[in-house]
Amino acid sequence: MRNIKLTIEYDGSAFSGWQIQPSARTVQGEIERAVTKLTGSAVRVTGAGRTDAGVHAAGQAANFHTESDHSAATIKRALNNILPSDILIRDTREVPLSFHSRYDAKYKTYNYIFITKKTALWRRSYLQVREGLDIDAMSRALSRIKGKKDFASFASSSGVKTTECRIISAELKRRDPLLIISLTADRFLYNMVRTIAGTVLEAGRGKDYDIDGIIAARDRSRAGPNLPPYALYLIEVGYDLPG
Amino acid sequence: MRNIKLTIEYDGSAFSGWQIQPSARTVQGEIERAVTKLTGSAVRVTGAGRTDAGVHAAGQAANFHTESDHSAATIKRALNNILPSDILIRDTREVPLSFHSRYDAKYKTYNYIFITKKTALWRRSYLQVREGLDIDAMSRALSRIKGKKDFASFASSSGVKTTECRIISAELKRRDPLLIISLTADRFLYNMVRTIAGTVLEAGRGKDYDIDGIIAARDRSRAGPNLPPYALYLIEVGYDLPG
Repeated sequence: MRNIKLTIEYDGSAFSGWQIQPSARTVQGEIERAVTKLTGSAVRVTGAGRTDAGVHAAGQAANFHTESDHSAATIKRALNNILPSDILIRDTREVPLSFHSRYDAKYKTYNYIFITKKTALWRRSYLQVREGLDIDAMSRALSRIKGKKDFASFASSSGVKTTECRIISAELKRRDPLLIISLTADRFLYNMVRTIAGTVLEAGRGKDYDIDGIIAARDRSRAGPNLPPYALYLIEVGYDLPG
Repeated sequence: MRNIKLTIEYDGSAFSGWQIQPSARTVQGEIERAVTKLTGSAVRVTGAGRTDAGVHAAGQAANFHTESDHSAATIKRALNNILPSDILIRDTREVPLSFHSRYDAKYKTYNYIFITKKTALWRRSYLQVREGLDIDAMSRALSRIKGKKDFASFASSSGVKTTECRIISAELKRRDPLLIISLTADRFLYNMVRTIAGTVLEAGRGKDYDIDGIIAARDRSRAGPNLPPYALYLIEVGYDLPG
């Protein structure tokens, strides 16, 4: 038995998210079908995280166990031949049998991307916002997000045991006309990036949020709106892996 | 009577090109319908150039005559409210009655954009090409294109009187992982940008073209392939207009 780790890019537009569902087109479903076709055996492909419908990935991670003796390079090439064009296997590597793409993830990085002008060309890739946002206010709000905190106020309820997360970095990057909120954390709660992005955007529009007070309240109604999925990108999943 | 000039951005993906056609979705058709709805009168909207099905525009130009007394700013806002999201009126201005968006155009700039890596996310915005293209060879090929020349070898036949064009600038811009062929000319022949881009790409792949000889031959079969439309962008149409 071998364990193969995948690094995956996808355009989330035409998927009902990562997680396999009966009678819906999902990224996990397409990849499991492709691996099964390649190896001849039904297989479970475990993802590092479940992205929602419409959310994109530049570097999602996943792994699967197989008896196949194809090289990692062959598996990459073969899967890309089988998969639809909105999924791309960027990398494959053999990892220790015990490796688990979700449990072993040390951090994930998500980008939420605004475009500060009206656009027809990029309307499905970035969230259109008006020019003249208060960038300093957005950066200030984001700086209060950083650290090990309870993010219950920024999560849709989803029955997790703990709502504590450690946000390792929280940056606002200007790449005119794009404005990128980049968050790296050990874990993210359901809808957390989109709610943080919505809160930071409202701060940029002049809303005077007390971010520390919102965090302390553990009350979802105190934070800003949940922004749409199509401007959210899972950029990277980090692991402690040799080599 | 007034004459209104439009600057238009559109995502060409879902259009059968610019030019109005019965029972096909076209940019001109959508804009004429929107102007008619706004002004209450049937109107002809004249475009600076006819882009093909799938070709995008960041700055197409067009004009129409109207008895409407709405301000240019009101027309812009109203048209954007009426138009579908894949067309955006970027600018409106009142111009002299004699202004004609096609006849008066001094130059047009088109970009053909390659992405030098495999991608799922941007597969519909740029043409995927492999890394390691010979950039110097591409630049050399492009430098031979510049100037006032007969471009019959780079055009699909279309019954024009003359195939002479003046290419004012021809640049290869690296914006890693993007590679942009940017052409500015007084006029372009049918399929000319996509054929020049195909020829330059082949040069980057090692084909040793004699560009001067191809131009002299006035023979379409001597130039490279016509690349697909979805990576072509009409960037700007230039005029001598006061103010």
